Amino acid sequence: MRMLKEDTSPLARTDVAIAEAYASVGNVGIGFDILGHCVEGAGDRAEVRRIPEREVRIAAIDGVVSDLPLKPEDNTAGAALLSMLRALDLPFGFELTLHKGIALGSGMGGSAASCVAAVVAANALLDTPLPREALYPFAMDGEVVASGSRHGDNLGPMLLGGLVLATESRLVRIPVPAQWHCALVHPHVVLETRKARAALAGHYALGEFVAQSANLALVLAGCYRGDADLVREGLSDVLVEPRRAPLIPGFYAVKQAALDHGAFGASISGAGPSVFGWFEDRAAAVAAAHDMQAAFRHAGHASDALVAPIDGPAARVV
Amino acid sequence: MRMLKEDTSPLARTDVAIAEAYASVGNVGIGFDILGHCVEGAGDRAEVRRIPEREVRIAAIDGVVSDLPLKPEDNTAGAALLSMLRALDLPFGFELTLHKGIALGSGMGGSAASCVAAVVAANALLDTPLPREALYPFAMDGEVVASGSRHGDNLGPMLLGGLVLATESRLVRIPVPAQWHCALVHPHVVLETRKARAALAGHYALGEFVAQSANLALVLAGCYRGDADLVREGLSDVLVEPRRAPLIPGFYAVKQAALDHGAFGASISGAGPSVFGWFEDRAAAVAAAHDMQAAFRHAGHASDALVAPIDGPAARVV
Repeated sequence: MRMLKEDTSPLARTDVAIAEAYASVGNVGIGFDILGHCVEGAGDRAEVRRIPEREVRIAAIDGVVSDLPLKPEDNTAGAALLSMLRALDLPFGFELTLHKGIALGSGMGGSAASCVAAVVAANALLDTPLPREALYPFAMDGEVVASGSRHGDNLGPMLLGGLVLATESRLVRIPVPAQWHCALVHPHVVLETRKARAALAGHYALGEFVAQSANLALVLAGCYRGDADLVREGLSDVLVEPRRAPLIPGFYAVKQAALDHGAFGASISGAGPSVFGWFEDRAAAVAAAHDMQAAFRHAGHASDALVAPIDGPAARVV
Repeated sequence: MRMLKEDTSPLARTDVAIAEAYASVGNVGIGFDILGHCVEGAGDRAEVRRIPEREVRIAAIDGVVSDLPLKPEDNTAGAALLSMLRALDLPFGFELTLHKGIALGSGMGGSAASCVAAVVAANALLDTPLPREALYPFAMDGEVVASGSRHGDNLGPMLLGGLVLATESRLVRIPVPAQWHCALVHPHVVLETRKARAALAGHYALGEFVAQSANLALVLAGCYRGDADLVREGLSDVLVEPRRAPLIPGFYAVKQAALDHGAFGASISGAGPSVFGWFEDRAAAVAAAHDMQAAFRHAGHASDALVAPIDGPAARVV
């Protein structure tokens, strides 16, 4: 059967592909729901097998999280593959095995990484693989299962690499100097995305928007110009951070530890509780990560830390 | 007396300087209070004379507006000069004659142009003129007299030229392709800035802000990349325009006229009632301006139109 399929489709590639998508910092403080960058060092792996049945099956989930739904519609990666299958009207299906490397509720884009790893692996099994941008809608259909909202600030950087502006229909990679590094510290506390979103309910004043959009614009201009001073001036979340910080034990001490090491800025990664800082070079980020972890420990929580270039690599087929 | 002063201060320049500041498009739809660009073709002129008394005097105001306060503290340009005089602790003063070329309440930055023309002229009279950015706080102290709020989206482009990101403390010029043009149409209706600001009272939803900041980011990225498609996708004001459009007779017809000529986007200039559109070249902007004026005429109002490059010139000493 497999031989026959390969014979009739000379462009068919292998029957199995494995892809890894890295963690990411969503929001980046000043770009709520629209800006994110990847952070190499932790990631989810998806092993996808092409199957003759036009369906999606989840064979197994293992790693740092395993109690996830196996029904494809209810699983972020499964839903992403279903979206891909239907949109492309493929004459075959996918069987997925997911190896979770990113904890759920960590604010490091765990659900997005599962979606992206799955669609990137599946894409490698297509007779004519699509460009990365074309996978975005499928990954988004998966992400919405986890978070309840359509935001691509984690998906975008995982698909394209580096710092990415992600609107509902468009991904734009923003240039970042290669030496700028991120320290990302993940305390061992779970903060559910839905709960973190609830903290944002209610109304906002126009002045808050003006201040936040000025900061966003400064960071974008600073990245395009490679101007650390502009980023330093802009990388300050006046809109979301004040509302979510109380959900994260020790947040302000952790942030201060980053700033004490010369961070351009530091804030909540995604919906939290992870905290990130941006630094001019790797050495500063490493030193800061150490003290950021100490601050979390002081607040009663062990943590993991990642240090990686902001302009990091996209998901890849391994 | 004058001879004596010049003798004792060998660096002293002339005793009189004239500067012109051009009109501007504030907000640019997606950058409320923080983004603007200048539009050559209309402007305010300030004639500033160095006087021995350490004070600011307004000798006369003429042009399209003349019934403005002559008391320096109550006049935008006078207040800007006072701010400059005090901050620099100058051993002399300024006498100002203002020639207004921009109508008040037009949404074309009339008050800002008076401030900028005045400080640019006065700066030319200093023994050591300051860089343009250093004049920003003085101009801001003048602008606040007219508008009641500290926003630099008109001041910034007038001081630096082109498209400028203006936060309270910083000006950043954003690159724009030379061929991109703006059509700015000013209907002969007065819309007071304070009234236009009142339309923005109340609360805002976070989702509005996410959409607007995505649009802002697309426009900034599009300008840095010279990518018209990104600007076309982003140049849409979902936050302020819906609240102010009812104050402008015929607004939606005028906007549509711009879009019908291929505008990247079109919206309210500053606080209105002027309407601007951005176009890929001069010819499209000229054709659109014609039909935008026709749409205002249909709504009962005569208008003026300006067509100029978005990356236009800063205020200059003439």
